[in-house]
Amino acid sequence: MSYNELQNHMQRIADVNYAAATLGWDQETYMPPGAAGFKASQLSTLSGITHQLFTGDKTEALLSSLKNSVGLSEAEKKNVAQIEEDFNRQKKYSTEFVENMSRAVSDAFNAWQQARKESNFKLFAPYLEKLIAIKKQECELLGYQGYPYNALLNLHEKNATVAELDVLFTDVRKELVPFVKKVQQAKQVDNRFFFQHFDRDTQWQFGIELLKQMGFDFNRGRQDISSHPFTTSFSQNDVRVTTRINENDFSEMIWSCIHEGGHALYEQGLPAEQYGMPLGEAISLGIHESQSRLWENNVGRSLAYWKHNFALVQKHFPEQMKNVSALDFYKGTNRVEPSLIRTSSDELTYHFHVMIRYEIEKQIFEDKLKVNDLPDYWNAKYKEYLNIDVPNDAQGVLQDVHWSHGSFGYFPTYSLGSFYAAQFFHQATKEMPNLLTEIENGNTHNLLNWLREKIHKHGKFYTAQELCIKVTSEKLNFAHFMHYAATKYGTIYGLG
Amino acid sequence: MSYNELQNHMQRIADVNYAAATLGWDQETYMPPGAAGFKASQLSTLSGITHQLFTGDKTEALLSSLKNSVGLSEAEKKNVAQIEEDFNRQKKYSTEFVENMSRAVSDAFNAWQQARKESNFKLFAPYLEKLIAIKKQECELLGYQGYPYNALLNLHEKNATVAELDVLFTDVRKELVPFVKKVQQAKQVDNRFFFQHFDRDTQWQFGIELLKQMGFDFNRGRQDISSHPFTTSFSQNDVRVTTRINENDFSEMIWSCIHEGGHALYEQGLPAEQYGMPLGEAISLGIHESQSRLWENNVGRSLAYWKHNFALVQKHFPEQMKNVSALDFYKGTNRVEPSLIRTSSDELTYHFHVMIRYEIEKQIFEDKLKVNDLPDYWNAKYKEYLNIDVPNDAQGVLQDVHWSHGSFGYFPTYSLGSFYAAQFFHQATKEMPNLLTEIENGNTHNLLNWLREKIHKHGKFYTAQELCIKVTSEKLNFAHFMHYAATKYGTIYGLG
Repeated sequence: MSYNELQNHMQRIADVNYAAATLGWDQETYMPPGAAGFKASQLSTLSGITHQLFTGDKTEALLSSLKNSVGLSEAEKKNVAQIEEDFNRQKKYSTEFVENMSRAVSDAFNAWQQARKESNFKLFAPYLEKLIAIKKQECELLGYQGYPYNALLNLHEKNATVAELDVLFTDVRKELVPFVKKVQQAKQVDNRFFFQHFDRDTQWQFGIELLKQMGFDFNRGRQDISSHPFTTSFSQNDVRVTTRINENDFSEMIWSCIHEGGHALYEQGLPAEQYGMPLGEAISLGIHESQSRLWENNVGRSLAYWKHNFALVQKHFPEQMKNVSALDFYKGTNRVEPSLIRTSSDELTYHFHVMIRYEIEKQIFEDKLKVNDLPDYWNAKYKEYLNIDVPNDAQGVLQDVHWSHGSFGYFPTYSLGSFYAAQFFHQATKEMPNLLTEIENGNTHNLLNWLREKIHKHGKFYTAQELCIKVTSEKLNFAHFMHYAATKYGTIYGLG
Repeated sequence: MSYNELQNHMQRIADVNYAAATLGWDQETYMPPGAAGFKASQLSTLSGITHQLFTGDKTEALLSSLKNSVGLSEAEKKNVAQIEEDFNRQKKYSTEFVENMSRAVSDAFNAWQQARKESNFKLFAPYLEKLIAIKKQECELLGYQGYPYNALLNLHEKNATVAELDVLFTDVRKELVPFVKKVQQAKQVDNRFFFQHFDRDTQWQFGIELLKQMGFDFNRGRQDISSHPFTTSFSQNDVRVTTRINENDFSEMIWSCIHEGGHALYEQGLPAEQYGMPLGEAISLGIHESQSRLWENNVGRSLAYWKHNFALVQKHFPEQMKNVSALDFYKGTNRVEPSLIRTSSDELTYHFHVMIRYEIEKQIFEDKLKVNDLPDYWNAKYKEYLNIDVPNDAQGVLQDVHWSHGSFGYFPTYSLGSFYAAQFFHQATKEMPNLLTEIENGNTHNLLNWLREKIHKHGKFYTAQELCIKVTSEKLNFAHFMHYAATKYGTIYGLG
């Protein structure tokens, strides 16, 4: 059997997977509320079909005929090897397990929406309990070394382990926590200008302009509104981002837009000729997040960026911005302040939010923490790390969608992403000494090309660890993030 | 094997079919242009999967175990019988044929869009040629009596034949053609007020109000914009309509909105507990169209309707409507005038448009008309029946999407729908003597209930022919339409 046959087979599976992605996108953007039940059933059936197609005899026959075949290119070999790895993992699941999981996720998602609306964790608890039970089964199915939780981490970030993350978060605790304390003792920067009235349509227009400027290709993608911004794709030629607009907080739209735009540029930069194959897919969630964070923080929260774009803000919102300068705006966007909500937190305390979720998840999967105790535990941790009181479940333990999706082991990739981003951006500025000047001129073309060449176009050819070394000549190193943070915030807050 | 197993199996197939419908909807509403290729491949794969699932051994085993089983209810028996009929038809297609067809349709659709944009039939011709060749194969696969075209007619309207349609269109020619001539000799009514500037957002809002008033359930459906209005559903609880808005012609939005609303009420009225089963599906395109036409024409172009709703028009567009009365508005909405475009034609000459397509299709499938001769033939027929010159392909032979979808044998259902609508509405007014008064008061609640009870809730329990007799005590009878037309337009145009 030929490599071509494998490719056709994988493309067929991708067709169904991307169809499911389309339904998922619809679910979060346009679906009328009454449609939820049947939509869940449709998603469950599609997940079962892709699982059957992928784990069936055909894949096995194709792989065994190809894996020792000579004459494959390096890229083809990588694809075959990666498919085999996925195949061996997927074979551990029964189709029934996959469909059950899909249904449990849809139910949990609907329950979570209601629970959050009513700010009542109890409405969500039984569904979460059920999901956790399924995920524990999944850990056993997949197998793991050390912690069961490692099995889940590995689903989102290949080779990630509790041991390594513990080291990383120890660094966070040792270096970032005291640094944030120092920042908090300095004179606070003003960001009140964000909290005026900003017309919805004008914000939307501004967001589209920012996406275009980044290089988002609207011929191969679009933006819509959803209550939780996300990026999804239905092929490399159809990448969808969503944003949300708060008319009383201008910042929400801006950074959700740039963040999702960063994810989308990665998806649009994956090679379309590898549709359905691993080399047409993103490496890992951590690397995906490195792309969104790099644009959101290293670019979108830089002084250079606002030296250029503040004029655009002023054009759209002259009244609101009449007493604000580009420097004020830049400083305001970088106000460090412990807060309740992860997605709107500053880029330093952000990692405390992630740490809390990581600790909770670890303990859930070591059977040390019960679902019913989650709200109290959550609130205690927010007091401990962020020194704030959580007023209700909606702004506390119910704030994130992830657990309702069954996505345990996902949150740590957010911190990994930021740390990779700092390291990649540092490397980019080393290789392109004019980069900041270019950004000041509204030109991110060379940066995007650099990312395309160094990261996007490779798909899954390298692992995250290999890519990091290839691009930056060293392993992931928290020092880059810490250096970036200390320099930037040291200046903003005037810390000697 | 149990009936329940059949139901689960059919629901799974429906899940995939509705997923494909979701992708189809996205294709026509939100899809970025660059995504077309992969979307086509996804749709083709999904169509192949449903075909494999439905024509596989499992369906056969379930059917043969159930079709002679005792203890099934009448409804269950109907479902089994209908599924068997569909199964026997679908078995005639290979999966390869189905996937080829799906791909040819996607390619033809993209070519048609481009051809129409450039008003150049030649760009579409080779794709149309290919599609027609596939459809001719399909006629042979399906088998037919008399004309090959009967096989295609039957796909859209079970039991429809060239013989019967020829009789119907002879009536049209004999009665409607001379009546329209009489109308054309009378003093023309004024509809210039439609062609002012009507703000897009206000039109949108007005359309939503009309849908709500009809009883469209926005909890189980929504409206979006597309270049060609259509209705689709992803379950009985998720019915999507689209409309288009022309800021310089108010009438387009109004009747596309009411028309699609009529289709949608049928879909929303199908029993959700029959999800995936024939009794949860519409009978035929003709009956579907009867629902849209009934709302569009018998309700939406009635004096009673505008006696109520003209005040709403005036509220939204006081400037544009300041010298117009409800009666003027009503008359203007019913201006009879031969025109180029079927979808915006009046409800009388509309049938001449259908007749032309019917004659063309018949001849194509009798090998009497070649693709390359289509534009000239089209233009000659428009001269003959409508006495107008077709200025270009875009407004002529390329105006309709259907052929690019491979939908031959579809157009006649539009006329059938109007004739059924007149007959059903006549029956409704007989059974509910206050109906027109209710409509005058903006109350279509009883009408909707009547349609729900008499038509919607039965799904495919009856054939179109059976339903017509059950509801109106007679077969489809063109006299009802002709009587409706003669009375209404006789009054509007003052024909003695």
